[in-house]
Amino acid sequence: MGHRLLYRHPDSSVGSSTPRPCAPTVISVRDCVAVGGTDIVLIAGPCAVEGRDMLLDTARAVRRAGACMLRGGAYKPRTSPYDFRGLGEDALAMLVEARAATDLPIVTEIMDPRHVDRMHGVADVLQIGARNMQNYPLLDEVGRVTTPVLLKRGLSATIRELLLAAEYVLAAGNPTVILCERGIRTFETGTRNTLDISAIPVLKSETHLPVIVDPSHASGRAALVTPLALAAIAAGADGLLVEVHPCPRDAKSDGDQSLTPVAFADLVRRADAVATAVGRRLMPNAAEWRRTLIAGVACPA
Amino acid sequence: MGHRLLYRHPDSSVGSSTPRPCAPTVISVRDCVAVGGTDIVLIAGPCAVEGRDMLLDTARAVRRAGACMLRGGAYKPRTSPYDFRGLGEDALAMLVEARAATDLPIVTEIMDPRHVDRMHGVADVLQIGARNMQNYPLLDEVGRVTTPVLLKRGLSATIRELLLAAEYVLAAGNPTVILCERGIRTFETGTRNTLDISAIPVLKSETHLPVIVDPSHASGRAALVTPLALAAIAAGADGLLVEVHPCPRDAKSDGDQSLTPVAFADLVRRADAVATAVGRRLMPNAAEWRRTLIAGVACPA
Amino acid sequence: MGHRLLYRHPDSSVGSSTPRPCAPTVISVRDCVAVGGTDIVLIAGPCAVEGRDMLLDTARAVRRAGACMLRGGAYKPRTSPYDFRGLGEDALAMLVEARAATDLPIVTEIMDPRHVDRMHGVADVLQIGARNMQNYPLLDEVGRVTTPVLLKRGLSATIRELLLAAEYVLAAGNPTVILCERGIRTFETGTRNTLDISAIPVLKSETHLPVIVDPSHASGRAALVTPLALAAIAAGADGLLVEVHPCPRDAKSDGDQSLTPVAFADLVRRADAVATAVGRRLMPNAAEWRRTLIAGVACPA
Amino acid sequence: MGHRLLYRHPDSSVGSSTPRPCAPTVISVRDCVAVGGTDIVLIAGPCAVEGRDMLLDTARAVRRAGACMLRGGAYKPRTSPYDFRGLGEDALAMLVEARAATDLPIVTEIMDPRHVDRMHGVADVLQIGARNMQNYPLLDEVGRVTTPVLLKRGLSATIRELLLAAEYVLAAGNPTVILCERGIRTFETGTRNTLDISAIPVLKSETHLPVIVDPSHASGRAALVTPLALAAIAAGADGLLVEVHPCPRDAKSDGDQSLTPVAFADLVRRADAVATAVGRRLMPNAAEWRRTLIAGVACPA
Repeated sequence: MGHRLLYRHPDSSVGSSTPRPCAPTVISVRDCVAVGGTDIVLIAGPCAVEGRDMLLDTARAVRRAGACMLRGGAYKPRTSPYDFRGLGEDALAMLVEARAATDLPIVTEIMDPRHVDRMHGVADVLQIGARNMQNYPLLDEVGRVTTPVLLKRGLSATIRELLLAAEYVLAAGNPTVILCERGIRTFETGTRNTLDISAIPVLKSETHLPVIVDPSHASGRAALVTPLALAAIAAGADGLLVEVHPCPRDAKSDGDQSLTPVAFADLVRRADAVATAVGRRLMPNAAEWRRTLIAGVACPA
Repeated sequence: MGHRLLYRHPDSSVGSSTPRPCAPTVISVRDCVAVGGTDIVLIAGPCAVEGRDMLLDTARAVRRAGACMLRGGAYKPRTSPYDFRGLGEDALAMLVEARAATDLPIVTEIMDPRHVDRMHGVADVLQIGARNMQNYPLLDEVGRVTTPVLLKRGLSATIRELLLAAEYVLAAGNPTVILCERGIRTFETGTRNTLDISAIPVLKSETHLPVIVDPSHASGRAALVTPLALAAIAAGADGLLVEVHPCPRDAKSDGDQSLTPVAFADLVRRADAVATAVGRRLMPNAAEWRRTLIAGVACPA
Repeated sequence: MGHRLLYRHPDSSVGSSTPRPCAPTVISVRDCVAVGGTDIVLIAGPCAVEGRDMLLDTARAVRRAGACMLRGGAYKPRTSPYDFRGLGEDALAMLVEARAATDLPIVTEIMDPRHVDRMHGVADVLQIGARNMQNYPLLDEVGRVTTPVLLKRGLSATIRELLLAAEYVLAAGNPTVILCERGIRTFETGTRNTLDISAIPVLKSETHLPVIVDPSHASGRAALVTPLALAAIAAGADGLLVEVHPCPRDAKSDGDQSLTPVAFADLVRRADAVATAVGRRLMPNAAEWRRTLIAGVACPA
Repeated sequence: MGHRLLYRHPDSSVGSSTPRPCAPTVISVRDCVAVGGTDIVLIAGPCAVEGRDMLLDTARAVRRAGACMLRGGAYKPRTSPYDFRGLGEDALAMLVEARAATDLPIVTEIMDPRHVDRMHGVADVLQIGARNMQNYPLLDEVGRVTTPVLLKRGLSATIRELLLAAEYVLAAGNPTVILCERGIRTFETGTRNTLDISAIPVLKSETHLPVIVDPSHASGRAALVTPLALAAIAAGADGLLVEVHPCPRDAKSDGDQSLTPVAFADLVRRADAVATAVGRRLMPNAAEWRRTLIAGVACPA
């Protein structure tokens, strides 16, 4: 019945049976990544898993650049039914292989409440996309498992609605929700969406949950991803979710907003400087930990 | 798959293998209501089924006033998990009873792709709510049955995205989709949503599917429902979906925007005058047909 | 100053020194048109005055069709400084001539607070465009004269902000303000703007001022103008402001949304039917009055 | 006739008689501040000039903290005519005195095209507010003088419309325009406006003009000003415009979003770290220059 609720009575500050905890929730993923602590988490990978080789190549490249989790969609929500809708179960197997090859935990989207079992053992973080933020049967189902949930804000969801959607997951029993600002829909057509940068400090003040940012969907344009990523860190985000593709021009979806591995490595370098400027650091990934451990320093997680 | 597609290649007017039919699609419900023809269809009833008696009372009242279908939610999508979420299967049984008592076909919302079987024999029209307009597993499932689908526009969905969501249902094999404009989210806070009245003539020009309007959700205020209903008919809508509650003050959801049966009867009277002014008429309901048939005139359907 | 304020203390219902009058304000223009009474007022004409002949032709055509005032811009606000910005003082002289030829009062836009004198004797109604709704020096200046003001809602102005902009004019001493809903800016790109049809009943309930609608700017597409015009009347509008051009294809501005004289005559015919359905009628124009007076019936104004 | 236009033919990339310069425009204010160069410019001060003492106190405090220009409104655009509308000419005299006392150049808003002469000798930068972004007579007038113009983006203006508004000023002859992103109007009500952080890199790529950010109006809440300020610098802004009041609780306007001098000093310290992280630095102000000059180092401007 939900032991770690955001709000007990969302419209009232009176009579709250479980007062909001003061301490931020830090979510551990595979015991090697901690989301919501001091370190900033970089999640990167292709929009969709398009094949075994492209996935492995991308996974290795983003790990080398400094990502500590791998994203990649097996089931893709697409505006048109005739667009590429993902490789489905084949992609799940490829994700397992990519994790084995890189030690990067897997973040992948779940669209269907009937897929929770199928995702077990594959997804280290279950992503709920913007279109499904208020898909309540789906929120109920991911609330019944222990896998952390990355919940994206809907295109026209208010901050309060995002928090109440998270509350569905918590109320169903899963306290590990990562909130994700990914741009809202406005009148401006110069960018795909409008990154609501203010949502970061607002969410950080109103909830104990981690808050990350997806600068790729927010902007829709590769040239804007790095400036928005840096802005997100400066504004207090706990992590980034970035689309990286070995050859964005050939991507089956979201090519315009995907970074090349080289551009992503540049983003990481610059993000590191901004993180330091705000008193944080980027979370090292498995490869770096190993090096660090060999050198005799304790694991950060 | 899909023998009656809206668009074959949605971004191109060239090479369409199934050109858009010129004739409007008229959707027959229980062989007694025709949506999308000359007659304007009134669907009315409570937001949620709150009990057996209130449902029967409301059903009889809206039939008397002139409605030709009954709406009522068994499963309610609610922004907060702690709000009333509907009576579920108990409500389905009550809807069956109300239909038997009034001859009004039932329009009720489906939120979960696993509920299609459960809705069989209850729902004469399956409503997809605004939050689920891009819930693709759900669209796929309702596309596999023959029950007509009432598809509400998402809060921030463009007209093109609404058409492509309908396309999911058609592509899966169900050609009977009724589109519903129910207000979009804008900066204006004086009304719950902003009814996009222009969407009616735009949709009517871009698709062959019927287009109805929900003035209750669009406005969020009972005093605005009738002016918006009249405007919708003047702009070319094929029907209205109106929330009516025997005692709006006591409603468990959406009381502010629900009409009393008396106010609904007044809406019908005025809607009838506007329908006539634009060369149409309100579709008579079962009770009126019976009277008409006794008088020797043919059924309109 | 200001003897007929909308609100005395806009944020408070307490202590209002001048309570809101119950009776609607009816604004008389040149003693022959009454805006805000039972009759619905049609204002039509070109976006911009492009020349003497086109203006006279259009004025005669819209009078013949049933318009009771002539619109036409001498000074045009344009998004780009390189677009056609109007004929200025030459256009003012043409408007005077068109009024003499047709007896139609003139509605024309004022953009500059220094132009009030220049507009005297030309403008029977001073239009404030959407971009200038919160141009306070301009509102102050038109508040110091007795010419009625047609105040358009800003692209992203709330209903409350529109009322407070009107309040500037009233507070400066001019109680004759006509409010105009002309579409707001939203995410939807299928139409130029989104006509906020709900604003009509909301404004009618919150103020005593007349409310008219501009379906041309709201839609941006000629094919949508008539459906929106009918919807506006059904929702309770006191008048319409419609762009008509003898040859829309050749218009120097807003050609896409301008009706031909023939299409406008069709709009008037259909608007008349809807007006009757809601218990009103279209206001006859000077030509019709003369005919009516000859037949011995009293003037409506 | 405009010797340094943004675009010659804004809708066409062909035939541009004055191709876009590659070098950024650096605008010199009183020969001691350079906007648009490597250094980031901090402009701070009260929303409105409320009196002589509060202005001098604030000016000294923001100079001490590191601001290099002083903002303060003499003429305030207010949504309601009954709100405090500024001290007018009295405030202009106070601004002159504050400049003399602190050496900080003055940024103040002009609302009326008839006020250009009156502002001469007072305003070192003429601010055009969001409500007046498309007030073309005003843009024309400030285009005829040589004082730099700080042009704020309208509440619902697209990036393209902001550029075309700047083009009015440039086309009239004044090439010194500073663009200011200050939040746009969206559906989100958790913040006063939504800071469009993406507009910064988009504007920097599409124009040679400097781009600054107003985090105070964007958020409407003091607690959000610093995170947004840091985000703006990380995203590439050339400066910040920040509201500071000696006692925000007592401010006659915008108290909720004003920082105390102490909070502003903290913002400056943190902004300095982020500026360094992105390879820039904060521009020193007159007081610091003097110290620097005494120490024998050249002026940065």
